Amino acid sequence: MKLGVFQFSPAFGDKTGNLERIAKVLESAGERIPRGKRANPNVSSFADRRSPSRAAGELQSFSRRVPSRIKAGRAGSLPQAKGAPVRTGYATHRGIPRQSAGKLQKAEGNLVVLPELCTTGYQFLSRMEAFDQSEPVPGGRTTEILSGICRDRGLFLVFGMAERCGDDCFNSAVLIGPEGWIGTYRKAHLFWDEKLWFSPGTEGFPVFNLGFASVGLMVCFDWIFPEAARSLALSGADIICHPSNLVLPYCPDAMITRSIENRVFTATANRTGAEKRGGSDRLVFIGSSQITDPSGEVLVRMGREEEGLSSVRIDPLRARDKRITPKNHLWEDRKADLYTLHPCTEKNGS
Amino acid sequence: MKLGVFQFSPAFGDKTGNLERIAKVLESAGERIPRGKRANPNVSSFADRRSPSRAAGELQSFSRRVPSRIKAGRAGSLPQAKGAPVRTGYATHRGIPRQSAGKLQKAEGNLVVLPELCTTGYQFLSRMEAFDQSEPVPGGRTTEILSGICRDRGLFLVFGMAERCGDDCFNSAVLIGPEGWIGTYRKAHLFWDEKLWFSPGTEGFPVFNLGFASVGLMVCFDWIFPEAARSLALSGADIICHPSNLVLPYCPDAMITRSIENRVFTATANRTGAEKRGGSDRLVFIGSSQITDPSGEVLVRMGREEEGLSSVRIDPLRARDKRITPKNHLWEDRKADLYTLHPCTEKNGS
Repeated sequence: MKLGVFQFSPAFGDKTGNLERIAKVLESAGERIPRGKRANPNVSSFADRRSPSRAAGELQSFSRRVPSRIKAGRAGSLPQAKGAPVRTGYATHRGIPRQSAGKLQKAEGNLVVLPELCTTGYQFLSRMEAFDQSEPVPGGRTTEILSGICRDRGLFLVFGMAERCGDDCFNSAVLIGPEGWIGTYRKAHLFWDEKLWFSPGTEGFPVFNLGFASVGLMVCFDWIFPEAARSLALSGADIICHPSNLVLPYCPDAMITRSIENRVFTATANRTGAEKRGGSDRLVFIGSSQITDPSGEVLVRMGREEEGLSSVRIDPLRARDKRITPKNHLWEDRKADLYTLHPCTEKNGS
Repeated sequence: MKLGVFQFSPAFGDKTGNLERIAKVLESAGERIPRGKRANPNVSSFADRRSPSRAAGELQSFSRRVPSRIKAGRAGSLPQAKGAPVRTGYATHRGIPRQSAGKLQKAEGNLVVLPELCTTGYQFLSRMEAFDQSEPVPGGRTTEILSGICRDRGLFLVFGMAERCGDDCFNSAVLIGPEGWIGTYRKAHLFWDEKLWFSPGTEGFPVFNLGFASVGLMVCFDWIFPEAARSLALSGADIICHPSNLVLPYCPDAMITRSIENRVFTATANRTGAEKRGGSDRLVFIGSSQITDPSGEVLVRMGREEEGLSSVRIDPLRARDKRITPKNHLWEDRKADLYTLHPCTEKNGS
């Protein structure tokens, strides 16, 4: 399969413009699927258009109609798509439903990861502003437009966006494919002022079996907590998809360690550019989007200011071999009973 | 305080020679304490001697008498020294007993970490050979000789050795100080053929409060399991002391991540040189002993073939500030309820 990271600098509040730029780059990422074979020919694709101005027009007139098989979840709960790849565990991989196998062959092998909050920009002035920029998932305009691209190009995408659910707003990573929305992860470890703008996710670290690979989701600051990547790997992730808006320099090297200690692929898509809104500090994002393999080799590392898509061909099943040496197996050698996983204060208090 | 790593290449099976070399280097590490003020003037110090041959003579005639306050533990259990610094939890730091405070002031600030199995070498031909090279802790000759140096030089040492306990043999890290033996960690994650030679430790990752710093112990391959360093940090370790015999290249960079994700100091003492015994593969050790600080800065990194002691002055209390940003606290931000810490197969089976 081909695994890519797409690095750019979204303009704050200009979803249409940001989506145009994403679409333009993704035109080169997937195999164009003839219109007659599209899963839903009624959903137009602005990835067809070569002219940015025509794409913009297409976006503005984009219908907000939601295909019937995608239903909004209950407020507070995290829906998963019916009939689509499902969240799965380490040893319970279930394939794509058989009726989709033909379509998947075309899509197989094209997974692109985009940055955190990639259509809105990062810095909000208030919780209200973040809420205004957020959308339901699935069913919101961003998910639908990007799903259209996935249909047309035979792609799977992981991207970050502000997700609205009832009165709550989450910093989420969304996984979509040629058949639409697959699943969502709501960022659990919120960084700095994100605590003002978003509610923390409360449903853990999900893994989705796409048939050709199992994909786990985490977002940016989750990297500093080794338990996040560990949870994904123990739940069967072959590839950790990691939309990010990194400002500190440590994460790219740390993701090499995450790969080695979990024997998984990682794909960190970071943004470039800078933001300074209101009285906030000016944030400069570090770029350096990266793909690593289960042995810790860096397959892709982009420049600090480089924009665009970098991808590499990988065999995701390499991540299922957890042997470190002929006598060391990553999971069999773990000593879960010996680990202290709460500060001793908690232990003493119980 | 001063924190050091001591890197060298022990000769296989030559404990006397190896201890001589250790003693010679440690002569420069501590403050020489006048003989009249020594905790136990009856225990001679071969660190006094300038001549290696005289030191060797001293070693050969070294009495195996065990000071009465240090008693061997029951087979299978891990004793801890009475009246000495005790294993402690995150929020329950207890200082050194008051009567020792005067002595400690002299010793305070000199902690040196030595490599794994630093008196015997690494490669054994059989479990029997490893057992023959092992010694009880406390009470064995190696612990007593090195304790003598600690008394004379006002030092704390962490070193790796083969520990005998009943019929078992462990790959252990031992912590000693000016008052003798303090505690032991038995390596839990055994690497490759170590599984043939040693029993795995079963008592987890201990932290000892030395008054001026809390010290956690792990050994070599434990680094690849993030739960080991995490357990030590959650149990209150300011400094993770990490005797090693590294042959793979990944650990030094990974220990930077261990520092950042736990906001602790780490001191990895590795060995140099190569070993090839019997029909085994030739192992080349990577040196590169290293000290990192809680922000991930590398304070010391030795060369691949360099031998000797490198040390740096640190403020260990920096490791108790777990704030990452004004709004992010490493422990308060953890979401322990969301982590998956067993492969899903186990979960499904229960």
